[in-house]
Amino acid sequence: RVTLSCVALCGGTHGNELSGIYLVQETLKNKRKGEAMEAVTVVTVISNPRAVQQRVRYTETDLNLTRISTFSLSLSAPVSERTPYEIIRSQELNSLLGPKGSGQAVDLICDLHNTTANMGLCLITYADSDWICLHICKHLHHLLICCFVFLVFHSVYNPYSKYLSVCHGAMEIGPQPHGVIRSNIFTAMQEAVHLMLDWVRLFNSGTQFDEGSVDVYTMVKNIDYPRDPYTHNITAAVHPELQDRDFCLLYPGDPIFLSFSGEILRYKGKEPLYPFFINECAYYEKGVALLLARKSKVKIPAIQCSRA
Amino acid sequence: RVTLSCVALCGGTHGNELSGIYLVQETLKNKRKGEAMEAVTVVTVISNPRAVQQRVRYTETDLNLTRISTFSLSLSAPVSERTPYEIIRSQELNSLLGPKGSGQAVDLICDLHNTTANMGLCLITYADSDWICLHICKHLHHLLICCFVFLVFHSVYNPYSKYLSVCHGAMEIGPQPHGVIRSNIFTAMQEAVHLMLDWVRLFNSGTQFDEGSVDVYTMVKNIDYPRDPYTHNITAAVHPELQDRDFCLLYPGDPIFLSFSGEILRYKGKEPLYPFFINECAYYEKGVALLLARKSKVKIPAIQCSRA
Repeated sequence: RVTLSCVALCGGTHGNELSGIYLVQETLKNKRKGEAMEAVTVVTVISNPRAVQQRVRYTETDLNLTRISTFSLSLSAPVSERTPYEIIRSQELNSLLGPKGSGQAVDLICDLHNTTANMGLCLITYADSDWICLHICKHLHHLLICCFVFLVFHSVYNPYSKYLSVCHGAMEIGPQPHGVIRSNIFTAMQEAVHLMLDWVRLFNSGTQFDEGSVDVYTMVKNIDYPRDPYTHNITAAVHPELQDRDFCLLYPGDPIFLSFSGEILRYKGKEPLYPFFINECAYYEKGVALLLARKSKVKIPAIQCSRA
Repeated sequence: RVTLSCVALCGGTHGNELSGIYLVQETLKNKRKGEAMEAVTVVTVISNPRAVQQRVRYTETDLNLTRISTFSLSLSAPVSERTPYEIIRSQELNSLLGPKGSGQAVDLICDLHNTTANMGLCLITYADSDWICLHICKHLHHLLICCFVFLVFHSVYNPYSKYLSVCHGAMEIGPQPHGVIRSNIFTAMQEAVHLMLDWVRLFNSGTQFDEGSVDVYTMVKNIDYPRDPYTHNITAAVHPELQDRDFCLLYPGDPIFLSFSGEILRYKGKEPLYPFFINECAYYEKGVALLLARKSKVKIPAIQCSRA
């Protein structure tokens, strides 16, 4: 790759995750005021404007969780009256940010998200060999933005990576209730985006970034809430000793749930793992109370843009 | 009044406020197991089952905020195809818990709510001469359930009081994101409901409750988020120094908002007041960033049920 000349900043992929939406609107306002001759072009996008307007995660199908296979198909599928809005929107986004594999595609996508879980500031990427994302992670980590972690999902839905053959990271920050904006969370996201863009400018100007390593949390499995077998209603909440302790090692035998009748349910796995997305609002409907990850150190090579 | 022989416990008036919903379901389960010969009959109700199923606050109109005038009208209004679901449901609730003014009406309604604001456990009542509610408040306070406060709204929408000529209190507890259940919040609500029912049992058994006083917060006004005059989008979040400081005195000149461009906006009132419902999710659409209250001490008389 020559340079990362064009970065897309996407807010509102989920319409009730407000930090990214207001950050994109604010960035757009400042762009109008000037900032010519930038070393990087920032494209701002509200990914799911209809969901944003309604303050809901999605209107018909989750833009984020449209599975790769479905999504890949949907990019070329003919549109009918029954096509869900989010599928149509994904085709628009493909035109706007791609098209996939074309020379006009943006070079880096930063997709802004919130979570109700106490996860601090996380970058989510979809391959542990995405050196650009891993170097950005290292850059953010060095500048000590609150709790910073990095996740790799191996088996994940990723709409954007299907448009584009470029780097893509989701920035996830919490805790913040969906439908609410908290100033401290907004500021943290704003700082992280500024730092990310600083890194891109340095990269584009020819700076060499040394080799190093970053801690990576790789998803292993998920755990659902205990449920009533007949009604499928949940019968327990996340245990107070686990609630808000994202990325704190969970040992076999540790409490995970406290049932509404007062019974403690414990972690039955054999291996200590790192819980995250603990009690995320949007995952109730997906049958996920928390995800569990293994932590590892990933070596990243030195990197420098190769000017043409 | 003779006794409070029948108490209604209502969850899910807002379908995404989960503590009350699961508490009502759990209470119902335990009732099935027995508990005959009780000194008080507890009726459990899911107020807005359709909203509960969809995990939304309401489906067509807010069951809670249907204004008294509209609501009073709606109880007798003929139902058409265009009647909002919540109006139809309010008529069903009137039959179930009332009818208003009839001998079959329940004696006390406890309506269970959550808020995203850091309000702790609050009782909301609608008159500062509701001695039953004020004595219950005192009872809960003495048993030291976390942060306990008591609010009186003077100009408030109150669906239930229109059915019934009896005491009605809303129990409001937070912080909890809507659509999420937190174990500590559930447990606090469960304890408060148990204590309230204990008080009712004592009352029904003829116990005299001494005179005393309680701190009452009376709503004075509300403040909206700063908004863009053209788009009506909010342009600032609650200031980090105010966020989560419900019921901490706000002085003239104190920061209230931090705009997305970094500007501090201050409280311009002349009188120090107590903020509450700070940054409540459901109030964005109502144009309310926080409410402000005056605190006073209300004297309550000794009370004892007069057995017939």
